[in-house]
Amino acid sequence: MKSQIVTFLIQCPDQKGLVAKITNFFFEKGFNILSCQQYVNSIENTYFMRIRLNADGTILSKKELESSFLELSTPLHFKWSVHYSDKKQQVAILVSHTSHNLYDLLERYKEGNLNCTVKMIISNHEKLKPIADMFQVPFYYIPVIANDKSKQEKQLMELLDSHQIDLIILARYMQILSADFINAYPEKIINIHHSFLPAFQGANPYLRAYERGVKLIGATAHYATEDLDEGPIIEQDVKPVTHESTPTTLKKIGADIEKLVLARAVNNHLNHQIIVSGNRAIVFPETGE
Amino acid sequence: MKSQIVTFLIQCPDQKGLVAKITNFFFEKGFNILSCQQYVNSIENTYFMRIRLNADGTILSKKELESSFLELSTPLHFKWSVHYSDKKQQVAILVSHTSHNLYDLLERYKEGNLNCTVKMIISNHEKLKPIADMFQVPFYYIPVIANDKSKQEKQLMELLDSHQIDLIILARYMQILSADFINAYPEKIINIHHSFLPAFQGANPYLRAYERGVKLIGATAHYATEDLDEGPIIEQDVKPVTHESTPTTLKKIGADIEKLVLARAVNNHLNHQIIVSGNRAIVFPETGE
Amino acid sequence: MKSQIVTFLIQCPDQKGLVAKITNFFFEKGFNILSCQQYVNSIENTYFMRIRLNADGTILSKKELESSFLELSTPLHFKWSVHYSDKKQQVAILVSHTSHNLYDLLERYKEGNLNCTVKMIISNHEKLKPIADMFQVPFYYIPVIANDKSKQEKQLMELLDSHQIDLIILARYMQILSADFINAYPEKIINIHHSFLPAFQGANPYLRAYERGVKLIGATAHYATEDLDEGPIIEQDVKPVTHESTPTTLKKIGADIEKLVLARAVNNHLNHQIIVSGNRAIVFPETGE
Amino acid sequence: MKSQIVTFLIQCPDQKGLVAKITNFFFEKGFNILSCQQYVNSIENTYFMRIRLNADGTILSKKELESSFLELSTPLHFKWSVHYSDKKQQVAILVSHTSHNLYDLLERYKEGNLNCTVKMIISNHEKLKPIADMFQVPFYYIPVIANDKSKQEKQLMELLDSHQIDLIILARYMQILSADFINAYPEKIINIHHSFLPAFQGANPYLRAYERGVKLIGATAHYATEDLDEGPIIEQDVKPVTHESTPTTLKKIGADIEKLVLARAVNNHLNHQIIVSGNRAIVFPETGE
Repeated sequence: MKSQIVTFLIQCPDQKGLVAKITNFFFEKGFNILSCQQYVNSIENTYFMRIRLNADGTILSKKELESSFLELSTPLHFKWSVHYSDKKQQVAILVSHTSHNLYDLLERYKEGNLNCTVKMIISNHEKLKPIADMFQVPFYYIPVIANDKSKQEKQLMELLDSHQIDLIILARYMQILSADFINAYPEKIINIHHSFLPAFQGANPYLRAYERGVKLIGATAHYATEDLDEGPIIEQDVKPVTHESTPTTLKKIGADIEKLVLARAVNNHLNHQIIVSGNRAIVFPETGE
Repeated sequence: MKSQIVTFLIQCPDQKGLVAKITNFFFEKGFNILSCQQYVNSIENTYFMRIRLNADGTILSKKELESSFLELSTPLHFKWSVHYSDKKQQVAILVSHTSHNLYDLLERYKEGNLNCTVKMIISNHEKLKPIADMFQVPFYYIPVIANDKSKQEKQLMELLDSHQIDLIILARYMQILSADFINAYPEKIINIHHSFLPAFQGANPYLRAYERGVKLIGATAHYATEDLDEGPIIEQDVKPVTHESTPTTLKKIGADIEKLVLARAVNNHLNHQIIVSGNRAIVFPETGE
Repeated sequence: MKSQIVTFLIQCPDQKGLVAKITNFFFEKGFNILSCQQYVNSIENTYFMRIRLNADGTILSKKELESSFLELSTPLHFKWSVHYSDKKQQVAILVSHTSHNLYDLLERYKEGNLNCTVKMIISNHEKLKPIADMFQVPFYYIPVIANDKSKQEKQLMELLDSHQIDLIILARYMQILSADFINAYPEKIINIHHSFLPAFQGANPYLRAYERGVKLIGATAHYATEDLDEGPIIEQDVKPVTHESTPTTLKKIGADIEKLVLARAVNNHLNHQIIVSGNRAIVFPETGE
Repeated sequence: MKSQIVTFLIQCPDQKGLVAKITNFFFEKGFNILSCQQYVNSIENTYFMRIRLNADGTILSKKELESSFLELSTPLHFKWSVHYSDKKQQVAILVSHTSHNLYDLLERYKEGNLNCTVKMIISNHEKLKPIADMFQVPFYYIPVIANDKSKQEKQLMELLDSHQIDLIILARYMQILSADFINAYPEKIINIHHSFLPAFQGANPYLRAYERGVKLIGATAHYATEDLDEGPIIEQDVKPVTHESTPTTLKKIGADIEKLVLARAVNNHLNHQIIVSGNRAIVFPETGE
């Protein structure tokens, strides 16, 4: 295997000797273990590992690695995935009218701080095309015509699949996606919601935050699931506010939180730091990589 | 008026010249204005002022001050209250089984950091009596017998009223109070709820926070109203948590937030920094007093 | 005066009746007081006011307003300034190699969230010209030749003055400016330093933060003064970090803090929320404007 | 070994196969690995592990475990320590006049949230004896007489050693301890400093924070070393403040930060989460234990 980093994400029923068995396996195959992070859920008695390997010392091919790992994992009932650093992920960003998250993501991308290729920006409006042009990323305008969403979603899926998109970022995309669409990309769609979920699910969170008189506002990045705003939470953050804030100023204050929260969640996903278990996202911290 | 600080809390329809008229009034009466904080709600077109006065320079009595202020305020449709620093507020703390908020409040009281007299601790259980004894504060055990809450509430009210209690602190008091009780003490009951409201209203917020997989937990201090956990929010804070947290560890982490949030809210109330308007609490910052 | 907002910033020795006298003055002149924020420094016995006025109701010209305010202010020993909303401030951004603050400021500007005109970007390197071009802001390359800084500073000043620049933002500008330059623009130069001052003044704060093993890193925006990193602090923020962070990852984490801190400080300045007293910056909160 | 948790803290030069070798060792000895946390410092090429074991499945005695681990560790150049849950640590708290940290620690102790035995409170003043009495912890008054510190320190050491104290907490103890004293308890003395070090080392940090006009204040818990306020940092936190704060209000605001920071640091130490390397403290997060 040519010089690269290999990351395994593993979950299985907890049992004695797991870390020894797994780390031995990679040690014997000639890998150098860069980091090995674990989490034991003692309530559900489940075990989770993220292990990062330097492949310089191994003679195995990807195929050989995966088939021999399968032998180890099957009797132990692993649910696992493997990720190779030589494979850059393909990302699509979906937007509508709001631009701050798009600007932020593209700036980080341009700066070399998003480990992916942003293949396209897709929108149901033309408004943000100039930003895509500024950053020289292809922009696709796919409107919802005559409220026929299914038709538009079909176009979306054709476009995404024709480019083998690995991650779909809903950067304030203001259309509700159908269950069919969502389920076609399990754990591959990250949405930013502009409240600290589960508070203020649904529409107009800042207005409702104002009306409720909360003393902090926030944002939540989560994987999209059939149930709107109910998916596994990846990242959340908040900022204190006072009675002085109007719904308009809350929106401005919130924009900065939304940018940070979505960018962190996307990075966690691109670095393969996340394992989803039920409705909870296990997010392992970065290990200085 | 003997040397003291006078604080007026005022709300009224917004109109031209308010600050000039009010500050003039006090200036001409010989008061020195220590601080004058305002808030204009441009959505509801309402005006709010907190003004703190040094009374050394005035010859007015409290009675004279209030009657002459009434002349100013009536045509301007003020809703107002006045508070004198020589009148220490009488506080009752209600608890059940959980002790961390009680410890925290009593420590601050003992340290001279709560501007009030803690007249009593009341509980529907005997468990926390030793803490009351440690801090030498009278402890009243008023259990709910045969689920007859109304009877217990009657006893509570008699006790509170016989001591002219100005502020009731629900420091993790685990009984739901009746509308009659709540309405007998408008804006005089502060409750701590162990979640960042409106998320996780009701019971077991930490368990539900674990189940939802949120990445931050929090606490909210609010005035108690008929609608449980729906009253005006005074203070909120949160702390980041990770997937490692169990409902038990969330409880521990949360305890520190609950202590800070309740203590801040109580101080804001005791310093007369709060004006309630509808379901929103205008909380003016401390002014170095 | 045609419809606009007028903001006065006032500091003077504390004395009785100030707020009444000042608010009366504006009331009688027909102004509507939108907000009136004060701060009394009881240690130095000084008084500070920021008062925002709606000029619709007045018949005064700017000239008349200022001359009649002078009559009020002189006997009271005011140090004051007045700012009119119809006068957009002219801003210059100085940069070197680091781009994240520049991106962030230009994005906010483009989004209409910086109340100013960004007239130019100036750099001692050509590296960031493409970003200036993306956002269509004039870029001036003024290198330091043969280490003759005075020559380069002279060019800078000519350029800045020929465009009547009101605010100079040092967005990671990596040249130390001379006292002559600094003193030519008192309280008109905002610098971002990538540490929570006074910790890690001077060079390489992230490396030194790593070496010291701090558990949080931060950024500080301050007015530039002769003494490097010693000027009045406008804004600071921090983020927790762990032992996992290398100087390189600290730099990345810090970039997000630097962006928020500089943007907030610049907004505070552009909204005339700041009064400098000695080496301390009084920063009044935004009042929902 | 009777049912208990065993925690190993290991540091050594980084090398291939470490995690496999170590986890195998414990697996083969019949231990169940509860958690295994690692950190690789790629700059100094050093490796750190905290591994927690359930000893139910082993037949080894402590002696046997340690001697056989020695065989593994010597060729790999481990610096290591082992900690058994059946051994409660003995703690001494040193104080002077300031009481908030003492109250906080004793409350947590009383609540069962400090995994240790608080054997004694020692002070160079009698002022805080009543608090020790409230919580029924032995109080020792050891004043500094005729400025003869060495004499007082000798008394301190005799007292600490006669009770086999494992951890000394300087909870605002206002005497500078000699190098001899400090070096007698390496990594066994935790001090709380009331600033975000390295800012405001030395005396009166809050006064200097006021004078510098910082926008946040903080606290730092660190291991005491010969160089005052220079020891490895365990925990830090900050809180935003405004120009309104006086040195007095900063002290009040800071007290809450000091309490949280010291308590967290003490818990990290008592849970054996910390490995010190040079002047940096590697603090592994709690693992839901």
